[in-house]
Amino acid sequence: MLFLTLFYVAIIVEAMTAALSAGRRRMDWVGVCLLACATALGGGSTRDVLLGHYPLPWVAHPHYLVVVVAAAIATIILARFLDRLKTLFLLLDALGLVVFSIIGCNVALEMGQPVLIVIVAGMITGCTGGVIRDILCNEVPLLFRGELYASVSIVAGVIYVGGLHLGLMHEVVVLVTIALGFTLRALAILRKWQMPSFVYNKDWH
Amino acid sequence: MLFLTLFYVAIIVEAMTAALSAGRRRMDWVGVCLLACATALGGGSTRDVLLGHYPLPWVAHPHYLVVVVAAAIATIILARFLDRLKTLFLLLDALGLVVFSIIGCNVALEMGQPVLIVIVAGMITGCTGGVIRDILCNEVPLLFRGELYASVSIVAGVIYVGGLHLGLMHEVVVLVTIALGFTLRALAILRKWQMPSFVYNKDWH
Amino acid sequence: MLFLTLFYVAIIVEAMTAALSAGRRRMDWVGVCLLACATALGGGSTRDVLLGHYPLPWVAHPHYLVVVVAAAIATIILARFLDRLKTLFLLLDALGLVVFSIIGCNVALEMGQPVLIVIVAGMITGCTGGVIRDILCNEVPLLFRGELYASVSIVAGVIYVGGLHLGLMHEVVVLVTIALGFTLRALAILRKWQMPSFVYNKDWH
Repeated sequence: MLFLTLFYVAIIVEAMTAALSAGRRRMDWVGVCLLACATALGGGSTRDVLLGHYPLPWVAHPHYLVVVVAAAIATIILARFLDRLKTLFLLLDALGLVVFSIIGCNVALEMGQPVLIVIVAGMITGCTGGVIRDILCNEVPLLFRGELYASVSIVAGVIYVGGLHLGLMHEVVVLVTIALGFTLRALAILRKWQMPSFVYNKDWH
Repeated sequence: MLFLTLFYVAIIVEAMTAALSAGRRRMDWVGVCLLACATALGGGSTRDVLLGHYPLPWVAHPHYLVVVVAAAIATIILARFLDRLKTLFLLLDALGLVVFSIIGCNVALEMGQPVLIVIVAGMITGCTGGVIRDILCNEVPLLFRGELYASVSIVAGVIYVGGLHLGLMHEVVVLVTIALGFTLRALAILRKWQMPSFVYNKDWH
Repeated sequence: MLFLTLFYVAIIVEAMTAALSAGRRRMDWVGVCLLACATALGGGSTRDVLLGHYPLPWVAHPHYLVVVVAAAIATIILARFLDRLKTLFLLLDALGLVVFSIIGCNVALEMGQPVLIVIVAGMITGCTGGVIRDILCNEVPLLFRGELYASVSIVAGVIYVGGLHLGLMHEVVVLVTIALGFTLRALAILRKWQMPSFVYNKDWH
């Protein structure tokens, strides 16, 4: 129940950040809604397409599309009030990342996938939406540049799978994963932790 | 029969506009053909991958690939004569948009999908080809910027599904959808109707 | 046995060239690994998603992910020594292109696809990884610009399918395809053979 609420918070936050990205690119209203759908639902869709796990979440539950479009339109209307909420957004996005990762792990677990695929499925669910958003906005995906984001998703997946493996209660494992994953991401944002970059300047072409 | 003809017109026009985009990017002949295939057949392929509806159209009917490649090569040869046909192309592209949307709705209807997914399937079929073309050309997709394009696809889907729901003859519904959808898109082009843009200038990153 | 070795060489080389691309874009270590996975495994994944051929290679054999990530990390560590190996890399990449094409043809053949789809499946397997890499690096895919790359993949597919059709021994057909395909690509690199470009300067938008 709590988890379902967190899922809706996650897709709404992803929809809203996508809408703001769309606004920076001066997209029209329809474009804003489409980008919000691709971002908020793209991670789970990519996971399911790669795993051959049909129907996709939004096909099975079409009202997800309604929620995401409503969040996008609300963002257009309320944009001027959102500036002050930057930190809140970043924290909710961190929460969403962990929630999406857990959902992705669960889908792969139910399919009986091996551990490595379970963790990768979590990472794809958590991170691919933002990659799709950045590609459609014609930018090099943020995911690849320095921030602890995919890493947080992997850590969350390892904690979640490890907790289940230890035979702990499912609710406990979920709460611990969210707490630790969220804290790690929040610390990374606040302390500006960065992954080391790989810089290579030779052009071969 | 008429509808099949319209489908071929639609993929040929999408292939030709993709070939011209490729020419603006100075792609080689093979690149032109590949971009034409991805554009003309990408919408239906994306729909089928997302719905888990196999085999994809061009896998079931490989001669679609031959038609698209022939159209791309014809475009390379005839490019100098196409300048004067800009308006004709835009109108044929409008026709193609509506035809693709109807086909997409039909696929989802035959799968027994709910109404919202049917209309989204039509929009994906009509619009995704152009998005793939723009991504491969390294541009922000035109779809997201101002023109009534996705909106026309949605309107066509609503008319089509509504008409079938009213129990009208299938042929009549198809013709009415094409007539209204095409007129709306043509008017949008001629009168330069634009969707309102969402402009947001704060950069959070 | 030899062929399996060649497959590993192919994914390792694709991972390493992707890692160098990532380094040119100053991606972080996680980004380097993700780009390497998307590049080295993206061609086979795209083929399988389009053909509805599940599970995907890396889902069935998760250790592919480990091999690719190890190759990416080795590239980061050894980057300074790789400059002198440019020609070796190009030749190994040519080998990988032909090996991937043969694997792609085989998957489609085992599914009972018609000849045209078999050759297209080979080309998708050989070429799409590089396209995904270039899209994620926000560049117009190299594939579309001049070099004989997709063409080599198509020629290799035609030789392979033709050889099997003539009833020759499978091992012989594989070796002949690799020898001819590799030679064609190597000659194209050394002699700077180019496909003719299509240049079109009118902007319609």
